[in-house]
Amino acid sequence: MPRVGHPLDRLFYPESVAIIGASRSPSKFGHIQVANLLNTGFGGRIYPVNPRADEILGLRCYPSVLDVPGRVDVAVVSIPAPKVPGAVRECVEKGVGFVVVISSGFKEMGAEGAELERKMVEAVKGTDTRIVGPNTTGILNAENGFTTTFVPIWGPMRPGPVSFIVQTGLFAGSFLMHVLTAEKFGLCKVAGLGNKCDLHEAEVLDYLAQDEATKVIAMYIEGVSDGRKFVEAAREAAREKPVIVLKSGRTEAEQRAALSHTGTLAGRDEIFDAACRQCGLIRVRDFEEMLDLVKAFAMQPVPRGPRTGVASYTGAGCVIASDECALMGLELAELSEESKARLAKALPPWARPTHPIDLEPLHETVGPDGYGLALDVLADDPGVDCVMANIMGLPEEMKGTPFYAEPEDFVRYFSRARERAPEKPIVVCISGDRAGVEASAEALEEVGFPVYPSIRRAIRALSALYRYSLVREKLASR
Amino acid sequence: MPRVGHPLDRLFYPESVAIIGASRSPSKFGHIQVANLLNTGFGGRIYPVNPRADEILGLRCYPSVLDVPGRVDVAVVSIPAPKVPGAVRECVEKGVGFVVVISSGFKEMGAEGAELERKMVEAVKGTDTRIVGPNTTGILNAENGFTTTFVPIWGPMRPGPVSFIVQTGLFAGSFLMHVLTAEKFGLCKVAGLGNKCDLHEAEVLDYLAQDEATKVIAMYIEGVSDGRKFVEAAREAAREKPVIVLKSGRTEAEQRAALSHTGTLAGRDEIFDAACRQCGLIRVRDFEEMLDLVKAFAMQPVPRGPRTGVASYTGAGCVIASDECALMGLELAELSEESKARLAKALPPWARPTHPIDLEPLHETVGPDGYGLALDVLADDPGVDCVMANIMGLPEEMKGTPFYAEPEDFVRYFSRARERAPEKPIVVCISGDRAGVEASAEALEEVGFPVYPSIRRAIRALSALYRYSLVREKLASR
Repeated sequence: MPRVGHPLDRLFYPESVAIIGASRSPSKFGHIQVANLLNTGFGGRIYPVNPRADEILGLRCYPSVLDVPGRVDVAVVSIPAPKVPGAVRECVEKGVGFVVVISSGFKEMGAEGAELERKMVEAVKGTDTRIVGPNTTGILNAENGFTTTFVPIWGPMRPGPVSFIVQTGLFAGSFLMHVLTAEKFGLCKVAGLGNKCDLHEAEVLDYLAQDEATKVIAMYIEGVSDGRKFVEAAREAAREKPVIVLKSGRTEAEQRAALSHTGTLAGRDEIFDAACRQCGLIRVRDFEEMLDLVKAFAMQPVPRGPRTGVASYTGAGCVIASDECALMGLELAELSEESKARLAKALPPWARPTHPIDLEPLHETVGPDGYGLALDVLADDPGVDCVMANIMGLPEEMKGTPFYAEPEDFVRYFSRARERAPEKPIVVCISGDRAGVEASAEALEEVGFPVYPSIRRAIRALSALYRYSLVREKLASR
Repeated sequence: MPRVGHPLDRLFYPESVAIIGASRSPSKFGHIQVANLLNTGFGGRIYPVNPRADEILGLRCYPSVLDVPGRVDVAVVSIPAPKVPGAVRECVEKGVGFVVVISSGFKEMGAEGAELERKMVEAVKGTDTRIVGPNTTGILNAENGFTTTFVPIWGPMRPGPVSFIVQTGLFAGSFLMHVLTAEKFGLCKVAGLGNKCDLHEAEVLDYLAQDEATKVIAMYIEGVSDGRKFVEAAREAAREKPVIVLKSGRTEAEQRAALSHTGTLAGRDEIFDAACRQCGLIRVRDFEEMLDLVKAFAMQPVPRGPRTGVASYTGAGCVIASDECALMGLELAELSEESKARLAKALPPWARPTHPIDLEPLHETVGPDGYGLALDVLADDPGVDCVMANIMGLPEEMKGTPFYAEPEDFVRYFSRARERAPEKPIVVCISGDRAGVEASAEALEEVGFPVYPSIRRAIRALSALYRYSLVREKLASR
């Protein structure tokens, strides 16, 4: 099933997978991996490998990968580290395309582990077999349900436009759980690279840049294996789609921790920072910022300019939003005379049509439709490039008050604005009553509007969209 | 009911309250205010004032505040702006202590409104009556259930150690809703000051500094009315308890917005920043950071030093935590030989006792008790001043795996560590499965451990505790 015409197609779209270390014990990684492939609806052949079992989860089990009847595209290895080099040698003999080594106990554990890792790399040298990992959760593709992860997955995954490259093993696990249960943007492909003894980030970046299903790339790395190749791949990728990078190992203390974690020596941070700017990568500070930006890019277009329209249910929200726009390189839009006239018509006599639009006086006259009117005005005004709406999540007990809008009402107001101006990104901040906030946030993200718990984070996401539009322009002109 | 022996006692602990503009219509502010006082269990006398009603919510209604039989400590005014100066004059005649003017339409609306505000101030000049507001939600005291807010409250509020001073009206509303429904730290007193035509932040700060029930003060301001008084009150307050300040109006654009919002001219930001440092105030960037710090101060002690102990369920978490400690002025603790020996005894043979403590190998041998062991080691080690634990929220389906801990288990592990070292602040980061994260976060905050969704935010909170310990020391030595 070659998709991109790239060697990594076989890794992400395998037709047959061997699970070396498959287990009958439900808590073992080698059991969860088989169960996951059955749960996610993976359509390829699954070969459990375990010399001490005949059958696992209804699938015939083989003593060795060499006993598997047909071709094996990917072998997943979850056995104790000392046995891994032998298993890799068998995979080479079998002609396996990719061996995903989940096991830990290699370079990250000192000299003895490093020696095991060296032996493993030695085994594939000069062959067509590649190694992913070791010390990783490995690969996931939400499109075809293929995954090597040992994080339990109980059903098909929500497919979407976002691909991740991560260096770490278990962190990808909890991170993956979060994405699968709490995020609405949908997953495309995940590559956990672990110790990167063979396959490293530049190759995956190259692949994801070409992969049409991937619209946004997010990376977590502790260090770069080959700086030159990384820079080349990164620049090409950033020309095609936004690449968001979280790199830790910024301080000396952290560099020591990284060495004991994935055995990578983290490079000097300033050099990496300069490389990011040069390549057009979007660098973020933590996973929270990464996900904030990921969902903005996944759900919204990049704006044509920096002129930001703001509607807020409070005066303080207007003040804070103005401030954050200025601090983050956006400009507060100037409303046209026509827009002002539209607002003035709806406002109570004592209120003036200002920008940011304070929603409260509008609610007094037109009730919850004040949200819709403000969004329409910002969508229609040619002087507005992007929109941030700061709205209120209210408890059901407040139904009937002029401020109360149902989640469906918000969906209608925001969707109408998007129809009027599909080229303008719209981001949302909601605060207030916990249940009200959750219901409306969920409904809005479900239909593609990224929601943030603070104005600063909403504006930061808009600002990232805008800055990437400038980067892409610059890269295209080279 | 004088508590502090301060003039503002009468505002926060009134024995009688008149609601001028009380209404029979359930959606009107003047109705919600009366309902709130009944719902929150306020024990004082409530006098609805409305010339066109005999009874509101079972309470006898009076045509004017002058008709109320006994003394009136606080009058709450929610009538159209042009009628407010007349109502204030009646309050003066009645000898009301504080008039809380909820109505908007004053200085924030231009010249005409400014004139109304001037008349109102004129009316109280030289009298014993003070004005709070206008353009505010006013006062709240969770201890006695007294509130003037028009945000509906359906039951007694969770009393706690945190008091807020806020400048804005409606923002305090949604912010208050958030605090009441989503936060566990518990409210003490809230003062919404609005346009601050009379009562301003320095006086309230002075009061809250002396108020024993208040352990943490958080402020949102757009500008300061009297710089000298503010600096004096702030320094005195910071000597007593942490004062967290969010000030917007930092940029020129925002200063324009602030002018049209509460009619305050926001001062130059650099001057304010210097004043904060000089007074020992803790300045934050947004409401999210404010609440992050508020809950750390409300729930945990300040540490004796910067040496931070970290336990994390992932190698990447260890790397990121080390980095954030270094970036935010904390030091990664060095574990004692005894601590290392305790860890080594529990670890599998291939793992070394490193710090930060990677929980994963411990889980492999002792299962979920690995959390407890790591926390005990950090609590007992004399080289550790404060603790950050990065834990995983797992789905119920993973019950029985070595990583899975029930919310009650986490509560037990963390509470045990606190008993062993009550002087060390402990903060928590949880990520993973949404339902698992929510259940454990809720349980831990319920028993006083602040929980954050990212390592950066957890470490930032610890860092604020540490920096305040230095500030307090410095202020005390003066």
